[in-house]
Amino acid sequence: MTQNKFPPEVFNPEILDGSDLPAAVIAHRLAGMHPADAIEILNDLDIDDAIAAIAHLPHEQAVNLLDRPELRRTDEIFENLPLNLAGGFLDAMSADRVTDIFQELEDPARTRLFAILDTETKAALKKLLHYPPDTAGSLMTTELISVPATWTVSRTLQHIRDVERSRETVYAIYVVDPATKVLQRVVTLRRLITSEPGTPIISVGHDGNPVTISPLTDREDVARLFRKHDLLAVPVVDDDRHVIGIVTVDDVLDAMTHEMTEDTYKFGGLEAITKPYMEIGFLEMLRKRGGWLSILFLSEMLTASAMQYFEVELEKAVVLALFIPLVMSSGGNSGSQATSLLIRALALQDIKLRDWWKVALRELPTGFALGSLLGIICLIRITTWQMLGLYDYGPHWMLIAATIAAALVGIVTFGSLSGSMLPFILQRLGFDPASASAPFVATLVDVTGLVIYFSVALIFLSGTLL
Amino acid sequence: MTQNKFPPEVFNPEILDGSDLPAAVIAHRLAGMHPADAIEILNDLDIDDAIAAIAHLPHEQAVNLLDRPELRRTDEIFENLPLNLAGGFLDAMSADRVTDIFQELEDPARTRLFAILDTETKAALKKLLHYPPDTAGSLMTTELISVPATWTVSRTLQHIRDVERSRETVYAIYVVDPATKVLQRVVTLRRLITSEPGTPIISVGHDGNPVTISPLTDREDVARLFRKHDLLAVPVVDDDRHVIGIVTVDDVLDAMTHEMTEDTYKFGGLEAITKPYMEIGFLEMLRKRGGWLSILFLSEMLTASAMQYFEVELEKAVVLALFIPLVMSSGGNSGSQATSLLIRALALQDIKLRDWWKVALRELPTGFALGSLLGIICLIRITTWQMLGLYDYGPHWMLIAATIAAALVGIVTFGSLSGSMLPFILQRLGFDPASASAPFVATLVDVTGLVIYFSVALIFLSGTLL
Repeated sequence: MTQNKFPPEVFNPEILDGSDLPAAVIAHRLAGMHPADAIEILNDLDIDDAIAAIAHLPHEQAVNLLDRPELRRTDEIFENLPLNLAGGFLDAMSADRVTDIFQELEDPARTRLFAILDTETKAALKKLLHYPPDTAGSLMTTELISVPATWTVSRTLQHIRDVERSRETVYAIYVVDPATKVLQRVVTLRRLITSEPGTPIISVGHDGNPVTISPLTDREDVARLFRKHDLLAVPVVDDDRHVIGIVTVDDVLDAMTHEMTEDTYKFGGLEAITKPYMEIGFLEMLRKRGGWLSILFLSEMLTASAMQYFEVELEKAVVLALFIPLVMSSGGNSGSQATSLLIRALALQDIKLRDWWKVALRELPTGFALGSLLGIICLIRITTWQMLGLYDYGPHWMLIAATIAAALVGIVTFGSLSGSMLPFILQRLGFDPASASAPFVATLVDVTGLVIYFSVALIFLSGTLL
Repeated sequence: MTQNKFPPEVFNPEILDGSDLPAAVIAHRLAGMHPADAIEILNDLDIDDAIAAIAHLPHEQAVNLLDRPELRRTDEIFENLPLNLAGGFLDAMSADRVTDIFQELEDPARTRLFAILDTETKAALKKLLHYPPDTAGSLMTTELISVPATWTVSRTLQHIRDVERSRETVYAIYVVDPATKVLQRVVTLRRLITSEPGTPIISVGHDGNPVTISPLTDREDVARLFRKHDLLAVPVVDDDRHVIGIVTVDDVLDAMTHEMTEDTYKFGGLEAITKPYMEIGFLEMLRKRGGWLSILFLSEMLTASAMQYFEVELEKAVVLALFIPLVMSSGGNSGSQATSLLIRALALQDIKLRDWWKVALRELPTGFALGSLLGIICLIRITTWQMLGLYDYGPHWMLIAATIAAALVGIVTFGSLSGSMLPFILQRLGFDPASASAPFVATLVDVTGLVIYFSVALIFLSGTLL
């Protein structure tokens, strides 16, 4: 899709990688590429080659590449770059990106690099490092165009031409009170160029106070606000409505992608991992997966306890054991369907916490109907097998079929109900509803499912098999 | 977060909803609000009140609200608005939004409304309706600023001032060859205003061909491109590189949110639903969930067949039945962990299809280690229960414990391996890897897990229990 003026072989990282080209040659080739393509090549190079190539790039182009969040291993890159080169890069990079890198760096490199930053960068960094991850404060950049309300349109335009030459995108101009620095208005570039040059900047654009966020706003809420108002950037203000930064739409896109990955992991039942799959170390992988797997395993041990309780019944009617996996998995499946529906409904705010009972009232009949559907399928299956002589369920096969069908109705109803309520309970307790993983729901439903199954069996089969 | 100059009670939809205000009063209040807040109120109003309010709004403000994808029930709104009013709105709205609405409308309203559109809107609509959903063609808008390469900067600026007054955001200027109309360059507003007025527009901005997409590019690839190049808009070009539309970042944000919802549903094992939870009808809900639930149920029936095969062993050692749920769920859980990891790795293109064997080589030892972990926990559990006299597993309890631990190692290894390979197989077959749902993986692992379990039991317990 991307059209390039370079021959395709330049874009094949293997050619750069395998052929022991001198760093200067690699740097020269990188300098001529689309930055996004150069990043891909840097990510694929051996770390030493990548560092050498960056060191050989012209300053402005190196900064441009280092500034992109897609570039990986920046901690290693900055640890190994010559110190004065690293300092020059960091001072020229955007503040939000430098913050990300310092969050990844470890001492002693972290302290060493911090010491050589210029005063301005140090101040911005101190402020930004202070905000918790996943908040607007950690997403924002402090570089924005802010002008006093007393300026005219033409003076603002001149200011952009003079001062902001290097920037590719100007999202908006933030107009502040000249004395108090309080945010008064947001003017888009579009409005600026269609206004008369002599107009005071304060009278350009929308009425009404602009949409703003606090540095502690959660990244999910930030994304929701961007969607709601079709924003390209939003100012982050402190309690006195001073602009302390802006969050831009490209950072929101990245944050949404991370959110999507984290939520998928959570739903799959493992801890959040930010690295690409191939870069996760063996021990880290075991830790991230083993923790939840063990917790689920310990909870699932309750099924063994439940079964021990019904061991007498099991010995009398081993045929009951045949259908345990079938019955239990149906409960888990209907539960994970309901959970995935409600996770999204809560995330999109289609449904509020207080509406839990409306959901319960919908899930009850839905679960009942779905359970009946599976029950009927099961009746047909057992009858067919018995009639065709494919398997002999014994003289009481009709009772057995009825037991399983009735248990399915109960278990699928229970599965749908508990699967739909779990995200509400988690949100109420202050957790992310997306933490309601499919394995978690399945485990929850399994234990109860077994109890339902054997209780129904006791009712239906007492006096015959049991 | 959103700051407003209106008193808070105006924003409470219940006040507007419950008090039987005349439509004109509602419209007047809506007209003064942030559009995003007005949309929320319209969504919460009775449909008749919402239609009446829209009919009472000033033309420009009605168009502004109808143009937003967050407004729900637009099919009902357009079916019931007076015909000439509806036509005027549709002609003034953006082409991508009109397309969305026509995709929802059904005949006869659809034909009736199409007939009254002006020629230009009809032509744009015909073109856009033709692209499959979830492609760039269905996301794009045909409204963009394109100028011939022969113009100067000042003429382009004058053109924007004259012709594009109504637009809030100008993403970029598309410079085309005056004769062939082939796209030659993309100029940002930022570059435009910092260039000398007399400069030819063709010499402003980047070298190299601009990033473009085809109308058939998948929305996931579009989102990836936006992230890679930090775009605000991307031109959609046909085979001759004529610009036929642009996809803007706000549409990409919406598309990503839909993608996130669809993927969560798929992973939870149900069909894509685009409506909010509360608006899904009972029968539709049954259809979307019942289909997959039945398919999974039918596949899971294989577990009953597998168990029938081992019925003799089960009758000899009912104690084996006690651990069936535990052993099987561990396979399903490790499988859904691996699946969620690989779904994201493939979606983010951290891993290519051809790397499947690298993943298999990682998952084998990982699964083995995780299975061993659970096996050890299980050994401890059975030994403790036996020693403390909490339960009597019989004289061969050590052999039973060893059977279960060994089965866990096999099943968790198999679960991790098959859970990680499933997304590759689906992608190879041309499906979305995200279709590998947790219930699907669990079902797959359950049947094999039972066979592994009983085979291990036959090896360990032959001559004693079996």
